[in-house]
Amino acid sequence: MPEEMRTYWHTASHILAQAVKRLYPECRLAIGPATSEGFYYDFDREKPFVKEELDLIEAEMKRITEEDLPIGRFALPFAEALKWAADNGEQYKEELIRELPEGCEISFYRQGEFTDLCAGPHLASTGLVKAVKLLSEGGSSGAYWRGSEKNRMLSRIYGVAFHKPKELAEYLERREEARKRDHNKLGRELKYFTTSDVIGQGLPLLMPKGAKAVQLLQRFVEDEEERRGYVLTKTPLMAKSDLYKLSGHWDHYKDGMFILGEEDDPYALRPMTCPFQFTIYNAEQHSYKDLPVRYSETSTLFRNEASGEMHGLIRVRQFTISEGHLVCTKDQLSEEFKGVADLAVFMMDALGIGGDISYRFSKWDKDNREKYIGDEETWEETQSIMRGIIDELGLDAEEADGEAAFYGPKLDIQFKNVYGKEDTIITIQIDFALAERFGMTYTDADGLKRRPIVIHRTSVGCYERTLALLIEKYNGALPLWLAPVQAAVLPISDRFGEYSESVHRALKNAGIRAELDSRSEKIGYKIREARMDRIPYILVIGEKEEAGLTVSVRSRHAGDEGEMKTLEIINRIKDETDRRVILASG
Amino acid sequence: MPEEMRTYWHTASHILAQAVKRLYPECRLAIGPATSEGFYYDFDREKPFVKEELDLIEAEMKRITEEDLPIGRFALPFAEALKWAADNGEQYKEELIRELPEGCEISFYRQGEFTDLCAGPHLASTGLVKAVKLLSEGGSSGAYWRGSEKNRMLSRIYGVAFHKPKELAEYLERREEARKRDHNKLGRELKYFTTSDVIGQGLPLLMPKGAKAVQLLQRFVEDEEERRGYVLTKTPLMAKSDLYKLSGHWDHYKDGMFILGEEDDPYALRPMTCPFQFTIYNAEQHSYKDLPVRYSETSTLFRNEASGEMHGLIRVRQFTISEGHLVCTKDQLSEEFKGVADLAVFMMDALGIGGDISYRFSKWDKDNREKYIGDEETWEETQSIMRGIIDELGLDAEEADGEAAFYGPKLDIQFKNVYGKEDTIITIQIDFALAERFGMTYTDADGLKRRPIVIHRTSVGCYERTLALLIEKYNGALPLWLAPVQAAVLPISDRFGEYSESVHRALKNAGIRAELDSRSEKIGYKIREARMDRIPYILVIGEKEEAGLTVSVRSRHAGDEGEMKTLEIINRIKDETDRRVILASG
Repeated sequence: MPEEMRTYWHTASHILAQAVKRLYPECRLAIGPATSEGFYYDFDREKPFVKEELDLIEAEMKRITEEDLPIGRFALPFAEALKWAADNGEQYKEELIRELPEGCEISFYRQGEFTDLCAGPHLASTGLVKAVKLLSEGGSSGAYWRGSEKNRMLSRIYGVAFHKPKELAEYLERREEARKRDHNKLGRELKYFTTSDVIGQGLPLLMPKGAKAVQLLQRFVEDEEERRGYVLTKTPLMAKSDLYKLSGHWDHYKDGMFILGEEDDPYALRPMTCPFQFTIYNAEQHSYKDLPVRYSETSTLFRNEASGEMHGLIRVRQFTISEGHLVCTKDQLSEEFKGVADLAVFMMDALGIGGDISYRFSKWDKDNREKYIGDEETWEETQSIMRGIIDELGLDAEEADGEAAFYGPKLDIQFKNVYGKEDTIITIQIDFALAERFGMTYTDADGLKRRPIVIHRTSVGCYERTLALLIEKYNGALPLWLAPVQAAVLPISDRFGEYSESVHRALKNAGIRAELDSRSEKIGYKIREARMDRIPYILVIGEKEEAGLTVSVRSRHAGDEGEMKTLEIINRIKDETDRRVILASG
Repeated sequence: MPEEMRTYWHTASHILAQAVKRLYPECRLAIGPATSEGFYYDFDREKPFVKEELDLIEAEMKRITEEDLPIGRFALPFAEALKWAADNGEQYKEELIRELPEGCEISFYRQGEFTDLCAGPHLASTGLVKAVKLLSEGGSSGAYWRGSEKNRMLSRIYGVAFHKPKELAEYLERREEARKRDHNKLGRELKYFTTSDVIGQGLPLLMPKGAKAVQLLQRFVEDEEERRGYVLTKTPLMAKSDLYKLSGHWDHYKDGMFILGEEDDPYALRPMTCPFQFTIYNAEQHSYKDLPVRYSETSTLFRNEASGEMHGLIRVRQFTISEGHLVCTKDQLSEEFKGVADLAVFMMDALGIGGDISYRFSKWDKDNREKYIGDEETWEETQSIMRGIIDELGLDAEEADGEAAFYGPKLDIQFKNVYGKEDTIITIQIDFALAERFGMTYTDADGLKRRPIVIHRTSVGCYERTLALLIEKYNGALPLWLAPVQAAVLPISDRFGEYSESVHRALKNAGIRAELDSRSEKIGYKIREARMDRIPYILVIGEKEEAGLTVSVRSRHAGDEGEMKTLEIINRIKDETDRRVILASG
């Protein structure tokens, strides 16, 4: 997001807070930042804001922009700032001020009668904010103060603002389209997954269709990796804290981990597979002739995310991913890295999302050295090697400081979702540090023990997230080769039951995932249901089809294709599956 | 074990304790029961018994049998029994006495100068025990008092005794053979798995060979289940305690679970998949027309076992299993149960262990009603239905009281391992209780909501344990269709590298798991290594083979089979794999 829009949206959030204080002076202010696509403000209030109240607030915001109040900054000494908070009953602001260094001056912004603790910057006046819209249609949403369940639940109001009404209209239209495709809505409607309050947040359950799609993708990934020389591992999902102390996760990642067992000898669910695959490596002696070793595992990982951050299949507490580690010599690094990048691109192409990705080169942040392990020289050298490889691969990778893993720099593959929001789906990391920590060695040609280099990688994003992005990208119509049901056989009436069964059997025998809908429903109803279910091929069978040993084909991408010999459509579906053909839905 | 041997071994354990007290009077006695294959006695002593001490004890035991001391029972009132324990400094006996009802008489057994608290029965004299042998070759082993890590570690001495020296010799020979095949030894040597102190006990890591074998078996099971009408699920590995309270696990199984998160809102790792698949069932409406629904999942489960009970791949804290639940009407129960039993037998046959299994009908224990949910009438009715099905299937199932799950009776499939020890590998349970607890319903033909019945089942034992028993059964030589490497291509020298590579490629292209050993080692060495690795087909390539486009075949089951056309051996391996042929190793 350009800095200009951040200021614009931040000013809009102050206008929102001003409007709320005018209408509901009893509300306490928490925080109101700009986000990557608008802004929000959190208020402490007895009850959430309902739709009607938001309409009033939005109208008041328009009034404030029309009043075109000049916006000015001023600063107060620490004690006076605290007094301002106390006088105004703003306990959250007080808490924020108390966290600042005691000697410093505290910055405030004022517009008309409204003042807020704020580091700025802001626009010069409220009139510069034009097309404003509050987005919390169903009323305000709940958000814990500081994102922690232990704190009070606040009322959050989301909004957007644009320079021109036309931009706002376009934004709302895009948003509506994206919302229809939101996997968290569509994925439930199509019975890919469900959730349960009794089980807990961030722990989705894949229903048979979702589980089948993930199984297909998993096997495809495992088989492709095997073809490319990877060997499988299957390692435990928990370990004693000792392991994570060795890996550095205990110092650098503990907050994100689930801890179990007794306090003096805790176990933790694993957030990553690395230390487990390193243990496998260390269970054997290795010669330079055995390298590179390429380990992969369909691995379940756990992240102790805060409750407020959960979302469908995307922000979750448990997920499955093809995680792997390549152990190689320095000489092999470049070749191995290219192989890993090539595999990732192959996978993205197989999913039909090769055109939606971009690259990011995530580097360390020299000024926050305590966040990383390893010395400056190694970091800089590793980053320069990685830069070289990225250039050699001709990847147009944006550099991002401070986005590295704690043990090395990363190449991130970024995917832009239907909302236009960018997410990292794949990362490839070069690691010169952990082999040392884990005492990993190989015997070189000269008989000496040397440290190998490790590449951390995945070949496809985590499976739950990949399913979500495919649902959104394809509006629920997964590519044929991943579709849980590839073909539906629909007899027009019971009379054609026997022939329909034989067609269904022939499809199954050919390895096609086919369903027979023999219910005594009207054919129009059955077709509508199969279409709603996004089944790629609908095969209708009536008198004519039975007589000619044919089926009438309605395909998802081309609509009514007319009659076809059964064997012909079977071969076509098989061929399109094997070639992983991706056809736009009709 | 016949009751006669139990008495025999129990008397032998008293002879062991007597010998120890004669030699080391400072030892405190804990307990000394008969086991299914001998006996042990636990002693409290400053340090473990070393080999030399055990030799002395064994000699002293022989002396005691030669002395042929008469063994007599006597009883003491509660208070006097306590006094006996105090006078003799036997604090563990005192603890055991205090747990008995205060009014009762306490039973003792005496032989010569030695007396022990004991319910009996015993042989009439020590001379009846003939061939005695202590088994703790490396010295005594550690065992916590009452199996709890919180208690003091005791020194356990294991022993066996037989009526005839010949029986003992045979036993020791069998034991030696079994020990060589112990998966915990052989499985490590063959690099199927490893463990790590830093990761923790009961958490084995499958190395590439073990992970590959498990992947093959898993896919085979998933595919066969799909063919039989199962649908997949993929559900979270943890849930809030709320879920387990609903399922009854919190009340009946909490000690076996790993708890995480905060005390007031705990989460737990799942010990079973049932409540998760029930949640999937409840995420949709069901009509009687949709039933039965057959869910299956390759599911990872967790059991919080005590540290002392861990062993290789068999006693573990985390394991993966094909768990599934069939939801059906009462009318469908018998047919579905048969289908489940048939699938289990199909799997056992595929693994070649169909001849090693027996059946157990595990019933509730009326006298321990608090261990179960549901009323007596339902339990008795369910058990009688199950008895009927078992009879109809013609299964020769031994009845076992008190071995049911807390929610219903079970049919257990028992496997006898190389030590002759019986273990449950598969259980099938009928459950009339949990559908009620979870509010599961279906709409019947009359439009009314009814409760379905649930069958809990697995189709193959848990994968880690199955791998272990296959390693032991086949002495490490997994059946061809599960062998991680099916064929090794061994060129006699570098000169045949090109042709060897083409053979290797042809094998791979045919879907055979083949390895090429192109190291410049002597052919004898390479063959020996491949044989040690139990590779089913060793294909040697030299001048003659290159000229004739053949390979020289050494098969695991038949030894040297001479020259063969490459295509011929490829077709044979493919065919034997597809048919899952099991051939005894040569």
